[in-house]
Amino acid sequence: MFENLPAKVKIVEVGPRDGLQNEAQQVATADKVALIKAMADAGLANIEVTSFVSPKWIPQLADASEVARCLSELKLDSVKTSCLVPNLKGYERFKESKIDELALFMSATESHSKKNINKSIDEAISALKEVSVVAKADGYRIRCYLSVVFECPYEGKVPSKQVLQVTEKLVTIGVDEVSLGDTIGAATPVDVYKMVNDISKYVDKDRLALHFHDTRGTALANVIAGLSAGVTIFDASLGGLGGCPYAPGAAGNVATEDLVYMLKGMGIETGVDLEKLVDAGALAQKLLDKQLPSKYLRAALATREKAAGKQESCV
Amino acid sequence: MFENLPAKVKIVEVGPRDGLQNEAQQVATADKVALIKAMADAGLANIEVTSFVSPKWIPQLADASEVARCLSELKLDSVKTSCLVPNLKGYERFKESKIDELALFMSATESHSKKNINKSIDEAISALKEVSVVAKADGYRIRCYLSVVFECPYEGKVPSKQVLQVTEKLVTIGVDEVSLGDTIGAATPVDVYKMVNDISKYVDKDRLALHFHDTRGTALANVIAGLSAGVTIFDASLGGLGGCPYAPGAAGNVATEDLVYMLKGMGIETGVDLEKLVDAGALAQKLLDKQLPSKYLRAALATREKAAGKQESCV
Repeated sequence: MFENLPAKVKIVEVGPRDGLQNEAQQVATADKVALIKAMADAGLANIEVTSFVSPKWIPQLADASEVARCLSELKLDSVKTSCLVPNLKGYERFKESKIDELALFMSATESHSKKNINKSIDEAISALKEVSVVAKADGYRIRCYLSVVFECPYEGKVPSKQVLQVTEKLVTIGVDEVSLGDTIGAATPVDVYKMVNDISKYVDKDRLALHFHDTRGTALANVIAGLSAGVTIFDASLGGLGGCPYAPGAAGNVATEDLVYMLKGMGIETGVDLEKLVDAGALAQKLLDKQLPSKYLRAALATREKAAGKQESCV
Repeated sequence: MFENLPAKVKIVEVGPRDGLQNEAQQVATADKVALIKAMADAGLANIEVTSFVSPKWIPQLADASEVARCLSELKLDSVKTSCLVPNLKGYERFKESKIDELALFMSATESHSKKNINKSIDEAISALKEVSVVAKADGYRIRCYLSVVFECPYEGKVPSKQVLQVTEKLVTIGVDEVSLGDTIGAATPVDVYKMVNDISKYVDKDRLALHFHDTRGTALANVIAGLSAGVTIFDASLGGLGGCPYAPGAAGNVATEDLVYMLKGMGIETGVDLEKLVDAGALAQKLLDKQLPSKYLRAALATREKAAGKQESCV
């Protein structure tokens, strides 16, 4: 099982977008920028920084253009930034933003697609193609989030054949990387292993990312299954920022700290400095004024507090 | 990786002992008994119900004999009960208790053994042997917790050779099942896979259990590694009850709800009814008046609340 682990893994940090868009608390633009800077300082090299989805839908990220402007001034040369783009109007804002990559999104099931964006899958693909054609012509790399890949809140378990069909359509319209999302956090490791195996018979594994929500606690176990199946790109959010619109109060994305700790322990390079990542996680907790779900973050901060106090240290 | 999964797994519920002994909040005897009954109703067939370690050390479980008396009146025929026994004095209390099995404990490293019980490993084995000899003569099945198997707070990473030596000694003195403990919750899946592989070359896999604390979030991923290496016995605590004495505020054992959800999703039988397990978890939260770490528990209770309300349900 652990004989063919990759030497390194690419982590796509989605906290500033998928995380913050699901947090009730608004974060000020300057604080968002400071948080992204702390992430970059920790060595996160791929950060989804915001979204150009209408502020009507996602008020938390209404300051997308301003965040992008501040980031371009910071010149974070070590980071590839990305952001969510819903349509051609969003693409125009994206082009002005100097963000490096764009991320599209759609659903793996008809019902979720209809409920989420009021389009069938074919209609959604057509709409994405309008953006992808111009984006490719402009020379951009394109990622796409595919939602409810493993289980749909309306249709239940999703057959891999269906996910494969949509994934192939996305590749055909020019998408470079498809992030397979367990949107409701219901997948277990066998689901993940089978899905990746089935899809990667037809789609290059290098194009596949996995995006786990930790709603039922299985996210890191699912990462193990994904690694075993040959995936080397994983989305994560700092501190486990975010939530699940289908289970109020539930956990967000898999926490970047926990993911990095586990991969490091397995001898897999991520380019991330865990201590600096904890600094960034502590900043996120301060900005949101709450404890985030990451267990590594909590344990590391408890260890720091213990070391700072005069207690006898056990370690 | 998932080609040779077991058809079923034995879960040893340690919440009433390892969980409650690490909770600051005292739980009344009658409430403990009600909680154990709820666990039994959910189908948990192996429950560690208390400890005969001195109340000086573990005041939370000072009512061990009374808990045992109440349980024997309840006649939970579907459950094998067990409890912690530190020495011959504890063994006498155990014999009177009508609990089915006893559990010994010791450390995998000299430093932890010295700090924890002020005995070297050889001295600890000798002390355990005093108990195991009479317990075997009395016909009891014996389990033993081996602490700090993967990482020791004083010695760091623990070599598998050392763990193997102690495990073999335990088998020699009559221990039927050795629970390999990641006491400080630092192991990652490769550690687990290698350790089990190394030990099971010499010790029958059926004798090995795995006991994970979720301090850094890796517990369920470690279960996957253990399953892949052929282990079929896992300790867990309801709700993720408990904590880690080395990292204040950190998570306890892997949550039974999360473990059962994952195994069920992988087609592995546990004998547990998840809905009734959530009832038990809800009771534990009520008794301790706090939210427990189990993510499945939180998501399931949120779903119930949503269903009970008049909101449009997404599921």
